[in-house]
Amino acid sequence: MKKKLLFLSFISVGLLGFIIGALAIEPIVPAKELNLAQVELGKKLYFDPRLSKSGFISCNSCHNLSLGGTDNLKTSIGHNWQQGPINAPTVLNSSMNIAQFWDGRAADLKAQAGGPIENPGEMASTHALAINVLESIPQYIAEFKQVFGKNKIDIDQVTQAIAEFEKTLVTPNSRFDQWLLGDKDVLSVDETAGYQLFQNSGCQACHNGPAMGGTSFQKMGVVEAYDTKNPSEGLVAVTGKDTDRFRFKVPTLRNVELTYPYFHDGEAETLTEAVDVMGRLQLARNFTPEENAKIVAFLKTLTGDQPTFVLPILPPSTDSTPKPKPFE
Amino acid sequence: MKKKLLFLSFISVGLLGFIIGALAIEPIVPAKELNLAQVELGKKLYFDPRLSKSGFISCNSCHNLSLGGTDNLKTSIGHNWQQGPINAPTVLNSSMNIAQFWDGRAADLKAQAGGPIENPGEMASTHALAINVLESIPQYIAEFKQVFGKNKIDIDQVTQAIAEFEKTLVTPNSRFDQWLLGDKDVLSVDETAGYQLFQNSGCQACHNGPAMGGTSFQKMGVVEAYDTKNPSEGLVAVTGKDTDRFRFKVPTLRNVELTYPYFHDGEAETLTEAVDVMGRLQLARNFTPEENAKIVAFLKTLTGDQPTFVLPILPPSTDSTPKPKPFE
Repeated sequence: MKKKLLFLSFISVGLLGFIIGALAIEPIVPAKELNLAQVELGKKLYFDPRLSKSGFISCNSCHNLSLGGTDNLKTSIGHNWQQGPINAPTVLNSSMNIAQFWDGRAADLKAQAGGPIENPGEMASTHALAINVLESIPQYIAEFKQVFGKNKIDIDQVTQAIAEFEKTLVTPNSRFDQWLLGDKDVLSVDETAGYQLFQNSGCQACHNGPAMGGTSFQKMGVVEAYDTKNPSEGLVAVTGKDTDRFRFKVPTLRNVELTYPYFHDGEAETLTEAVDVMGRLQLARNFTPEENAKIVAFLKTLTGDQPTFVLPILPPSTDSTPKPKPFE
Repeated sequence: MKKKLLFLSFISVGLLGFIIGALAIEPIVPAKELNLAQVELGKKLYFDPRLSKSGFISCNSCHNLSLGGTDNLKTSIGHNWQQGPINAPTVLNSSMNIAQFWDGRAADLKAQAGGPIENPGEMASTHALAINVLESIPQYIAEFKQVFGKNKIDIDQVTQAIAEFEKTLVTPNSRFDQWLLGDKDVLSVDETAGYQLFQNSGCQACHNGPAMGGTSFQKMGVVEAYDTKNPSEGLVAVTGKDTDRFRFKVPTLRNVELTYPYFHDGEAETLTEAVDVMGRLQLARNFTPEENAKIVAFLKTLTGDQPTFVLPILPPSTDSTPKPKPFE
């Protein structure tokens, strides 16, 4: 009996440790073990609007690295000014996500990168056309060959290079990370109080891991239904399971001061509003204005060092490059 | 009598020197005497889509510094995907232009910079709204104050800073400039022959100065009328003079390999086509395919060092920042 109890308590402590571990927020560390040649190529592709039908829209159009890796619009602008169906999530720290897109329909960054290129509402090209464009440009042919060692460019190489570049887009060294790493003077009293409220209210149950989000899919509107005109249904679109209806990938809170507006429908324009809605709908907490302000103050300590790099210069098209068709 | 002749020949030599001087092509030199604080602020503004109504279009959208300072489209895409009326000229080396826009309606870069912001077909904002946006962002307020020493931001400061940044966008060190500066081995036999054809055919009569263009307004279609559906009429829109109908600012040939498509209507998709049309319509020259190829080879030696700088990170909007209105 004693042995069994001991065993059970070992199990419990282990389980508790596991749960606490899963809930932990960790500092962001710079990306390691990257293929730097792929990164440089991917950076060019990320900024190259010729991957779109119009020749006008690049990855950076909606995941703008001057703007926290997003476009700061409720929903994005696609080919022919089409209104996108959902808020563009930030690309910053997205390598830490359990899956990509709000509904997780892409397993990883590489799988994600091919989507917008051929989405008629976004870049509106096709993979075949994108490859034709790249293969008409000698400098790209040479760089792909150098990076991948093959004579033909294919979409797998394109998405691999873009994903490798995106892995560099991490934002270490936020004030909160400095605090986590031991510099306890770097947060103000209000910011520290905000973090305590954040923990004690249960925000961390979903917003955990180094990205403070992106580790799970959760129902939007646990305590109270979320009222939205946005037709997105979340994970159910991938799994077909009714229980996954309205379950979305938890967004990262890193750099959240930069990634407004908030939620999958972009309807929360301010952090104050987002904190209020999350408190009520997910946690049954009505934060007072003072509590809300402290949490917001804490959230603003999550802005890390933004990726710093030289704007890439793209190799010119040639006479044989398929022409952009912005108005067709 | 002898004295008079001597005097006249002095005059003639002087005049000849003046004409040759006016026709000379000079190497591009890096910009000097810039206000670096204005440059840094202007760089941010150049990349900031919040100067547009939609929050999506920045100066860099149509004068893309990854793409030779243009958008490589026949005519640009404006607010709500409106089709622009004219080909976007490159911003590279534009500080050397006699005036800005194809019809010269802006005297300088500062005067130009305010135009697209409030053009309903381009960024579709207003100067007042753009200032409201900037004044809602503490980091911008602080930077403008530091740069201009005033407590209020105004459109004059905005366009001054953008223009100062644009002055840095020069492209020295092309192979042709290396050749001009004495390194005669840097051009191939064909490229040198192309330059001789360029000079001897009279291209240089208009494409002169350090930017090889931008120094005068010239009639499009001197020998033969230019057939186009584009309704732009050029300088007459500014002067009202009938003789200025269809006179356009001569575009720079610097980086011309990057700034396709060509002409004010963007109808020449390749350099081969542009050289052919220019030869026939401006100079009564029917270049043979071999001559054309040599001139094109020469033109490709005009690509200089592209501006190199770190992509600017923009300060975030605040709760009081006017919201972008992409779909209104």
